[in-house]
Amino acid sequence: MRMYDIIEKKRNGHELNENEIRFFVKGFTDGTIPDYQASALMMAIYFQGMTEKETVCLTDAMAKSGDTVDLSRFGDLSVDKHSTGGVGDKTSLIVGPIVASLGGKVSKMSGRGLGHTGGTVDKLESIDGYKTTLTNEEFLNQVENVGLAIIGQSGNLTPADKKLYALRDVTATVDSIPLITSSIMSKKLAAGSHNIVLDVKAGSGAFMKTIYDAEALAEQMVKIGKSCNRNIAAVITDMNSPLGNAIGNSLEVIEAVKVLKGEVKNDLYEVSVQLATLMLSLCFGWSEAEAEEKVISAIENGSAFSKMKEWIKAQGGDEKLLEDTSLFDEAEFAYEVKSDEAGYIDGFDTEKIGLVSVRLGAGREKKGDSIDYSAGIILKKKCSDYVSKGDTLAVFFTNNESSLKDAELLFKDSLIISSEKSEERPLIYKIIK
Amino acid sequence: MRMYDIIEKKRNGHELNENEIRFFVKGFTDGTIPDYQASALMMAIYFQGMTEKETVCLTDAMAKSGDTVDLSRFGDLSVDKHSTGGVGDKTSLIVGPIVASLGGKVSKMSGRGLGHTGGTVDKLESIDGYKTTLTNEEFLNQVENVGLAIIGQSGNLTPADKKLYALRDVTATVDSIPLITSSIMSKKLAAGSHNIVLDVKAGSGAFMKTIYDAEALAEQMVKIGKSCNRNIAAVITDMNSPLGNAIGNSLEVIEAVKVLKGEVKNDLYEVSVQLATLMLSLCFGWSEAEAEEKVISAIENGSAFSKMKEWIKAQGGDEKLLEDTSLFDEAEFAYEVKSDEAGYIDGFDTEKIGLVSVRLGAGREKKGDSIDYSAGIILKKKCSDYVSKGDTLAVFFTNNESSLKDAELLFKDSLIISSEKSEERPLIYKIIK
Repeated sequence: MRMYDIIEKKRNGHELNENEIRFFVKGFTDGTIPDYQASALMMAIYFQGMTEKETVCLTDAMAKSGDTVDLSRFGDLSVDKHSTGGVGDKTSLIVGPIVASLGGKVSKMSGRGLGHTGGTVDKLESIDGYKTTLTNEEFLNQVENVGLAIIGQSGNLTPADKKLYALRDVTATVDSIPLITSSIMSKKLAAGSHNIVLDVKAGSGAFMKTIYDAEALAEQMVKIGKSCNRNIAAVITDMNSPLGNAIGNSLEVIEAVKVLKGEVKNDLYEVSVQLATLMLSLCFGWSEAEAEEKVISAIENGSAFSKMKEWIKAQGGDEKLLEDTSLFDEAEFAYEVKSDEAGYIDGFDTEKIGLVSVRLGAGREKKGDSIDYSAGIILKKKCSDYVSKGDTLAVFFTNNESSLKDAELLFKDSLIISSEKSEERPLIYKIIK
Repeated sequence: MRMYDIIEKKRNGHELNENEIRFFVKGFTDGTIPDYQASALMMAIYFQGMTEKETVCLTDAMAKSGDTVDLSRFGDLSVDKHSTGGVGDKTSLIVGPIVASLGGKVSKMSGRGLGHTGGTVDKLESIDGYKTTLTNEEFLNQVENVGLAIIGQSGNLTPADKKLYALRDVTATVDSIPLITSSIMSKKLAAGSHNIVLDVKAGSGAFMKTIYDAEALAEQMVKIGKSCNRNIAAVITDMNSPLGNAIGNSLEVIEAVKVLKGEVKNDLYEVSVQLATLMLSLCFGWSEAEAEEKVISAIENGSAFSKMKEWIKAQGGDEKLLEDTSLFDEAEFAYEVKSDEAGYIDGFDTEKIGLVSVRLGAGREKKGDSIDYSAGIILKKKCSDYVSKGDTLAVFFTNNESSLKDAELLFKDSLIISSEKSEERPLIYKIIK
């Protein structure tokens, strides 16, 4: 078998068979197929697409290219949640404890933030003592005993995807639904959970800018997950404004605590309830109405918040910070951003809002940059809110005063204010099962 | 400027500007742009094409990526001919002397054979003593004094094209009209001739299998040549059967001699007259009728053949071989291939005929293979000829008897014999100026 023939076959619009796809994944991973042939194939796939059969095969081959996590001891109760990434998205910190408090076995490997989106691992590291690395045995024992563990991506999971994604990232071949699908789903398969809920974000702060694209991706991922014998569902949620009001690491942990304590019932609360509901209905076969009722009562009766403290403590974190969030380090500068005009907030360029928080110190422009855990933004106004001139739009937190001016300009530039109140967008567009 | 943005722009169907194309050619040639980004761009170009402006710019940038030949001392009289490659194509050996005998200054750098097509340099090396390497000064002096020199491709001409072609060859990105155009035309521009005639082959033995594709390529090349201030024309000629009756190195030289002596007036003669006519009409502004008359009389009055001997002698070759072609080494085995059936020859799979001659020893399967100069095929029947069972179809010449059986099977497999005589194909489809 020759890689040349595989590239040409795909270029000419034909379906690759299983042997050809496995030959490519194996050869690319072990280095016998050079990058220049792999990138030509990726560009051919960008133009010609892949059938469902090809995508399943690519996903499976990449999932098996390295180590896999064995969660069989949890039977049908292991559950994972994946978000395609957005600004202010701290739902993992909320749904993990809710689902664990109701008997689900939540095992998650999360990433670090890069560019405009934050990473769950960074948010958790804003809690003193939290360990983002556990041995395999520690990880599995914690899932067993507490019902929840969240660690950083570690070990030799999906090396084919790591190498291929790095190549796609520099050859303009990321934006391809079958390639995105196989990248995300191969990691989810290798991570081992039987039940998977995907939060596919759509809008100005998401990778998928339109609902149309988000829906196509979500449908593909659900199909592929089912073909690989997983229990899977996807929710398409709005990312035309940041989720919740807090952006930045400790600020987001604090907002998550407020939601789990039932003190805040905003968009973040709604999306979290929806995700937890789906996770539980996949795990236990409950109807959505039944699952949602249990989710709400886990928040109201305090069991979800207790589970959060149990989890953070089990993983080495200081749970007192959760009991009294005023104990988190505070940024030296708190700066109120005032509106220059009056009108209704019509929307945000949410990706830019993410970049504002990076400027303030909350994120990384490139891999390896250090993070200021206390930096970030608290939004005081969100979509459809009316603002008068001089009203506070947001509060910026930073330890780097010199970043404030640029950040304010970029923030105001990302805001769309109009004289008419436009129709509200739905927060949850669609559920795909 | 980032290569990523250039790939993405082309992928999205936008026109690259001059700075972007020059940035790519320079960076790829000096190695600062890696192969994996170049191959992704090539595949994007395969799908999105290039505008005429982009193709001109790519051609010019590649032409200037290394040394260029300065033929300015010959004013408007320097002339080159290029064939896109076929089987039995020895027109360079014929049109060179004709055009030189009438005052054109023919300077050619030719390639070696690889796969099913032979190379002019290999054919010339079948003449004892012929030097395919000259110094720049020797080369220019011979063009000045004799009117004709043909050498191998040498020096650092178009390194960008060499490197890019090698990459395209292993990434299934060869078949793209703008990329083929810029590859061929960059070499022609660097080789310096003011007048260029292209012989674009169409058919089963050519790179372009259909007249439609050949015409598109020819039109592109003529446009690009004109945009680069060259006097240029293209002829689309048939390659559904080998050109002439001889295939193999010394066999082809002998057939060229026969055409130049006026002894043979076959398809090879016709195509050669057409090409020489166009070359002269470009050089001197003669009408085609006038040029053709001069071409025919140069053959009839012996001046073209005299010029051939003068050229071969000037370049170190033994011109006695041309005077008496029986002096060429003969292959040990001459084997007559007989027809198993009766009917009209409807066509050849000409690429396969080329491979038969490679099997017999006349060509290379891979770079660096040695060549048997006396090996090859003399066709006794060509398209539209009637054959009876037992008639001799061809004679094979080889020094490797064991190759004969396989070669015969492959040869017969390449032949299409039918009971009805089909309409004859035109030999010269079109002239594009």
